[in-house]
This record gives sequence, C-alpha cells and structure tokens, in this order.
Amino acid sequence: MLFYFAPKTVAVASHIALEEVEADYKTRELDFTSSEQHGEAYLAINPKGRVPALVTDGGILTETPAILLYLAQSHPDASLAPLEDSFRLAKVQEFNAFLCATVHVAHAHRVRGERWADDESAIKAMQQKVPQTMRACFQLIAESFFRGPWVMGQSYSIADPYLFTISNWLEGDSVDIREFPSIADHNSRMRERAAVEKILEIHGI
Amino acid sequence: MLFYFAPKTVAVASHIALEEVEADYKTRELDFTSSEQHGEAYLAINPKGRVPALVTDGGILTETPAILLYLAQSHPDASLAPLEDSFRLAKVQEFNAFLCATVHVAHAHRVRGERWADDESAIKAMQQKVPQTMRACFQLIAESFFRGPWVMGQSYSIADPYLFTISNWLEGDSVDIREFPSIADHNSRMRERAAVEKILEIHGI
Repeated sequence: MLFYFAPKTVAVASHIALEEVEADYKTRELDFTSSEQHGEAYLAINPKGRVPALVTDGGILTETPAILLYLAQSHPDASLAPLEDSFRLAKVQEFNAFLCATVHVAHAHRVRGERWADDESAIKAMQQKVPQTMRACFQLIAESFFRGPWVMGQSYSIADPYLFTISNWLEGDSVDIREFPSIADHNSRMRERAAVEKILEIHGI
Repeated sequence: MLFYFAPKTVAVASHIALEEVEADYKTRELDFTSSEQHGEAYLAINPKGRVPALVTDGGILTETPAILLYLAQSHPDASLAPLEDSFRLAKVQEFNAFLCATVHVAHAHRVRGERWADDESAIKAMQQKVPQTMRACFQLIAESFFRGPWVMGQSYSIADPYLFTISNWLEGDSVDIREFPSIADHNSRMRERAAVEKILEIHGI
C-alpha cells in the first residue's frame, strides 16, 4: 500500500493505525507549503485535494473513518474493532463520525475558514469561536462518550488514534487539555505505544 | 427499535433505510420549532441534541453513517452494503463520510451558521458562500464518485438514501440539481422506490 500524508494533519490517525496493524506500506509526504495537495498529480489520486489517501491493491481510499474501518477489517488479527458485533462496530463508527463531521470541522474554522466564507472579518469571527466550540465538543466526549481507559472501554480500537490526533490540536485551538483529565490521560497513554511513538517522530509532534 | 426524527432533516436517510430493510420499528417525531431536541428528555437519548437517534435492544445509536452501517449489517438479507468485501464496504463508508463531514457541513452554513460564529454579518457571509460550496461538492460527486445508476454502481446501497436526502436540499441552497444530470436522474429513480415514497409522505417532502 502507499499512504499519502502531510505532517501533523488528520493523516496522523490513519498513519498510527497502519503501524498498529503492522501493514505492509510505503509513504509519500505531500508538501502543503507549495499546495502540492491541489496539484494535478495528487488530484488524480484524491480529487478532493485532501489527505490522507491510501492506495491499495483494490483501489484508492480516502476519508479517515473509512480508512480506519478498512485497516481494522482487513487486519482482523490486530483486533482494532469489534468486527463480529454490528452494534458495537456501529458505536465505533458513531464516535468516528462525530470526530470527522463535528470536531474536526469545529477545529477547521480556525485554520481553513476560507472554505465557508470569503470575507476576512467573517473568517476572523469564525476563528474567535473555535475555543468555545472545541471545548463544547470535548466536554461531550469526556462526559458522554469516552469510556476509559480507551475510547470504547477496555479494548483499544480505531477510535483511539483518531481521538488522539484531534486532541493534539486543542493547544493550538486555545483549549487546555487538562480541563478534561480523562482525555489528557488518554493522550499520555497513547504516547506510550510503540506505534504512536514512531509516528509522532515522523510527523515532528 | 424506536427512531427519533424531525421532518426533512438528515434523518430522512436513516428513515428510508429502516423501510428498505423492513425493520421492526416505531417512530417518535421531535418538534424542532419548540427546540425539543435540546430539551432534557431528548438530551438523555442523544446528548448532542441532534437527530436522528435509533434506540435498539443493544443501546442507542446516532450519526447517520453509523446508523446506516448498522442497519445494513444487522439486516444482511436486504443487501444494502458489500458486507463481505472490506475494501468495497470502506468505499461506501468513504462516500458517506464525505456527505457527513463535507457536504452536510457545507449546507449547514446556510441554516446553522450560529454553530461557528456569533457575529450576524459573519453568519450572512457564510450563507452567501453556500451555493458555491454545495455546487463544488456536487461537481465532485457527479464527476468523481457517483457511478450510476446507483452511487456505488449496479447495487443499491446505504449510500443512496443518504445522497438522495442531501440532494433534496440543493434547491433551498440555490443550486439547480439539473446542473448535474446524473444526480437529478438518481433523485427521480429514488422516488420510484416504495420505501422512499412512504418516507417522503411522512416528511412532507
């Protein structure tokens, strides 16, 4: 497999999962400073011009929740999801859908406001609200969704690298992760894993 | 099962899927005009205060991509997803993740701008960009993702009611669905299905 990524982006989540399942893969780092993700060559890989993208024997996959599910299902021995229980598997996807559609989107209003408005002052107004929306997201996660020690409880799953990736963005979003002790603990616990340590070094985190 | 919904929302997608799999379920309609979704009773069902939510014997599920996956996996005879092929299943989840994290989010900037900014003029600036962002999303869908006659090709899947639900929002977003003939065809083809006809009547669409 060939994994397209850019450092410190949401690609961190899939990158960790690739290591966790001991996948046979190579990587290709995109240069966001020269907008390589919007160049013709990469748009042929992912017409959305976003990372990550995973080139497999069967075709190309994008979107973090889909890549994570694929890695869990194609490497069942790694036990990264409750594959035999459709309800529990859906609970994992529910958590990951919340991360991609609500939490990542809340964060993106600080760094990618031009996606949703052209006006400079509107983009500033969006940025101003990010600490509030990200805090609200993590309050929900800590109070209602996170079970501990891992997201889904006793079993480490594909929800964990995804939460970890986004919880690393809190500092930049002016939210102190220590407001959420269970999430801060989770972040530390993740950093003890060999797969995570390796990926953090590659991404310079 | 008990299905919480509000008319004409994204709940339409899961509602259609419930019919397609011939699920044994009852419904509970929430009154958005009185903000029932933010009331204490419903927050105990879904702390996010959003629809849909599906109460099952195993627990409560939220988030459209997760509910759709659960219905497909728990009703395999309905053949609503390529359950035995992890790559093709991930392609379905990839499409649904794009709908939930990018397309639904683009639309929401017209009707729910207060989620991301407090300033009235910023909310207006967001609304102004919605026709452009929704058009760009559907251009991508029509050119790069939609295979026809159904989203994934010859097989109807859980991606179809989800695309259908959001394509019905285009008119309100000032985008003419006829700019995308394959998507307009898909919308018409969906309306011929008995399950869809029944749900459209309930939602008054």
